[in-house]
Amino acid sequence: MEEFKKSELNEVKRGINRALYDVDKINAILDAGFICFVGYNYNGKVISLPMSYGRIGNKIYLHGSGKNRMLLNLLECKDVSITVMHLDGLVLARSGLHHSVNYRSATLFGKLVEVENLKEKEAILKCVVDQMINGRWEELRPITNLELKRTLVVEMTIETASAKIRNEGAIDEKRDRHLPIWAGVIPIKQVSEYPLRDHLLPEDIKMPDHVLEYYNTHKSNS
Amino acid sequence: MEEFKKSELNEVKRGINRALYDVDKINAILDAGFICFVGYNYNGKVISLPMSYGRIGNKIYLHGSGKNRMLLNLLECKDVSITVMHLDGLVLARSGLHHSVNYRSATLFGKLVEVENLKEKEAILKCVVDQMINGRWEELRPITNLELKRTLVVEMTIETASAKIRNEGAIDEKRDRHLPIWAGVIPIKQVSEYPLRDHLLPEDIKMPDHVLEYYNTHKSNS
Repeated sequence: MEEFKKSELNEVKRGINRALYDVDKINAILDAGFICFVGYNYNGKVISLPMSYGRIGNKIYLHGSGKNRMLLNLLECKDVSITVMHLDGLVLARSGLHHSVNYRSATLFGKLVEVENLKEKEAILKCVVDQMINGRWEELRPITNLELKRTLVVEMTIETASAKIRNEGAIDEKRDRHLPIWAGVIPIKQVSEYPLRDHLLPEDIKMPDHVLEYYNTHKSNS
Repeated sequence: MEEFKKSELNEVKRGINRALYDVDKINAILDAGFICFVGYNYNGKVISLPMSYGRIGNKIYLHGSGKNRMLLNLLECKDVSITVMHLDGLVLARSGLHHSVNYRSATLFGKLVEVENLKEKEAILKCVVDQMINGRWEELRPITNLELKRTLVVEMTIETASAKIRNEGAIDEKRDRHLPIWAGVIPIKQVSEYPLRDHLLPEDIKMPDHVLEYYNTHKSNS
């Protein structure tokens, strides 16, 4: 089992029984999503913004327009952190302070560099689009060199990371456990509804397999 | 219509046609969730972590154990930013770079202070729990003074804020719009599944109205 070394930066201090440093488990959290929160410094103020990402091995990729203030700032900061979180449930306890959520969350630390090679940028943008919906890139109009040149692609090598997973019921004080108060978990899930066709789409263009497959694996079961 | 003033800090530079500063619309985004991402400085490194929050007027409240490293750090930073985001759909375009998401996101800036008055702390913790699931607090075992004393409650006055909402289909290059490539939107929703009772709960304790109501308003329609 490959693990990230614990350091002052990534070591989880609260709820240490829920902390993990296992590379495969952290990658599983990253691969279950495509939106991350990137923290960066803007003129001494800390800003945390959502961005889409793709993962290849121990690298995380962000992209945006070459004029994107945030990405340009990020590149200047160099050291950043990225967090991905999935909400899995509301944990309703018998007292207020034991309310919690079930979740999977990973925080990554590393340095950023700009990727300039056009072939590399193309492979990365494929990864970012396919992270959102697998199999999409192959069906698209091919990207042009001009588009590649105008797009800023940023690579973060994950130097250290930690994750936390909570996946259990309410944990009340012993003295509260037999109170006549309803306790339990409300499972939360992110689901997809039926895909909506673009209004310009000719009628003979059927929904492709990758879209239907996405819907089938992400629709609600209930 | 009350608006936050635009400044260097909160002014949206990219996608300005999607930016808004309207207080009511920003509050609606905040009230649709209870998990925010807080960016803060830890020894010169920027970290962005998920926390639960409650809103009362123009104040956002965070809480945690009095030993919570993050909250103590946050209080030292004083100036922080908080972001709340709801993912509403995958936007699948005919070319890679026009892929996007539909979303509602708000970013808040302000100063933090600790709340020390116990009565005030109690009212705030009620707000935080009810932000997660409305009507919950009234049914709980009352909070004790010891619990209130051991809990760190932090108040952020929203000094400025901005939001972005994207809620439309794919916007392709004109020359791509009639290509034989499926385009459209896959709607994404966060839904709840049927609540799971705690295994210690006596059989005669029925699911209370506030839990059933939460489920009925958050379950999947499809």
